[in-house]
Amino acid sequence: MISKSQTKYIQSLHHKKFRDEEQAFIAEGEKVVAELLQADVFVCKQLTALPEWLLANEKLIKKYAPAEVLEVKEYELEKISALTTPNKVLAVFSKAKEPSVAVAGKITLVLDEIKDPGNLGTIIRIADWFGISSVVCSRNSADVYNPKVVQSTMGSLARVNVLYVDLHEWLNQHKKVKTYAATLNGTSIKNLKNIKEAIVIIGNESKGISDEVMQFVNEKITIPAVGHAESLNAAVATGIILSHIV
Amino acid sequence: MISKSQTKYIQSLHHKKFRDEEQAFIAEGEKVVAELLQADVFVCKQLTALPEWLLANEKLIKKYAPAEVLEVKEYELEKISALTTPNKVLAVFSKAKEPSVAVAGKITLVLDEIKDPGNLGTIIRIADWFGISSVVCSRNSADVYNPKVVQSTMGSLARVNVLYVDLHEWLNQHKKVKTYAATLNGTSIKNLKNIKEAIVIIGNESKGISDEVMQFVNEKITIPAVGHAESLNAAVATGIILSHIV
Repeated sequence: MISKSQTKYIQSLHHKKFRDEEQAFIAEGEKVVAELLQADVFVCKQLTALPEWLLANEKLIKKYAPAEVLEVKEYELEKISALTTPNKVLAVFSKAKEPSVAVAGKITLVLDEIKDPGNLGTIIRIADWFGISSVVCSRNSADVYNPKVVQSTMGSLARVNVLYVDLHEWLNQHKKVKTYAATLNGTSIKNLKNIKEAIVIIGNESKGISDEVMQFVNEKITIPAVGHAESLNAAVATGIILSHIV
Repeated sequence: MISKSQTKYIQSLHHKKFRDEEQAFIAEGEKVVAELLQADVFVCKQLTALPEWLLANEKLIKKYAPAEVLEVKEYELEKISALTTPNKVLAVFSKAKEPSVAVAGKITLVLDEIKDPGNLGTIIRIADWFGISSVVCSRNSADVYNPKVVQSTMGSLARVNVLYVDLHEWLNQHKKVKTYAATLNGTSIKNLKNIKEAIVIIGNESKGISDEVMQFVNEKITIPAVGHAESLNAAVATGIILSHIV
């Protein structure tokens, strides 16, 4: 049973304005909620689930003790869910504090205005696959706490730091690290091997990398095309680039 | 101005049943429609657009002469569109005849039950980028003529043959070609280089490759993971694999 005010509170977290005010976000689905519960990064403020999920996950709930646990019916879950097909459990977590990111000796991914929530989530999952611990986003990128992003990270949010910065300022502070930009006319990624330290910049889905950011780039890199497609999806391009340089 | 029966006809093409019956599909958006018009593969039966698009594309319309051209208002386009934000033009094309696919001396992509329309469209775009001319799908894969798939191919549908087959039968007919399967426990893709002829199989988003299909596989291949993500998105995995073997 969930009250009207609880329903309203969770619905408000579908919107960035309220997520920022409350410093909280929602995560949905069995896998995502289980991974975020087990991560040290987020505190679970409230967990709302169908009776069958609660029964099957008694140990998890006991161990990670959310502040509040609500048993709900399917129609109640539908009301608060941001998904078209709600999936048994929805949890409210406190946002993580923005970490300070160490770039020395590491590969750091920088996103210059990635707008599509699905792309951002998929990119965070790719970063996790390739062992990249930090994704630095321009402030005009999609919000990592958007329910669709949380969903498409498939739990990788628990292992990848995501922070929002003024990219101009941030890149200026990290000039010592070699900076690569994904473009359509650069060095072939096939010539890059075993890079240990780098900043890799991925640009906006249609506009690419902004001029303001491009001035910090040391080397443009490209995925060689054999056929005739004009471009690749931003997340696919990120995956391909990382698979060649990591 | 669009009539009620024309509106109903286009709306019916949002559904696979009617697309199959009519052997027709809809394409939306300036780029996709322009690319499909210019392709030799599809015949445009009807083109529905805002006045501004018709004015800006007079030459294109004259040259590729759709059987019927309708000027509509924005609210009319909204009614017939399958997109949340309709984009100036919607066209009805006849489906292409299913091509016979030559696999000798080529790389052919095989999809075993890719279910997500966005993934299928993105994979076709990736195939186009890497110069792969044929994508062979199991019959239980997403429909390539689904408006979402057409949209996410970004026009690559004009250059990539997509066909639906009984995979068991098809793979049995092409046993002479070395067959690779994307899995979580195979040879590293870093050890595969400059492959000229191959069948590359990508499996379902959650179940992977079915046992029935796996029996035709000569070599399992894997994208080495450094971090802890459990899997990669199917389209991202396809892009990474092709970038290493092409």
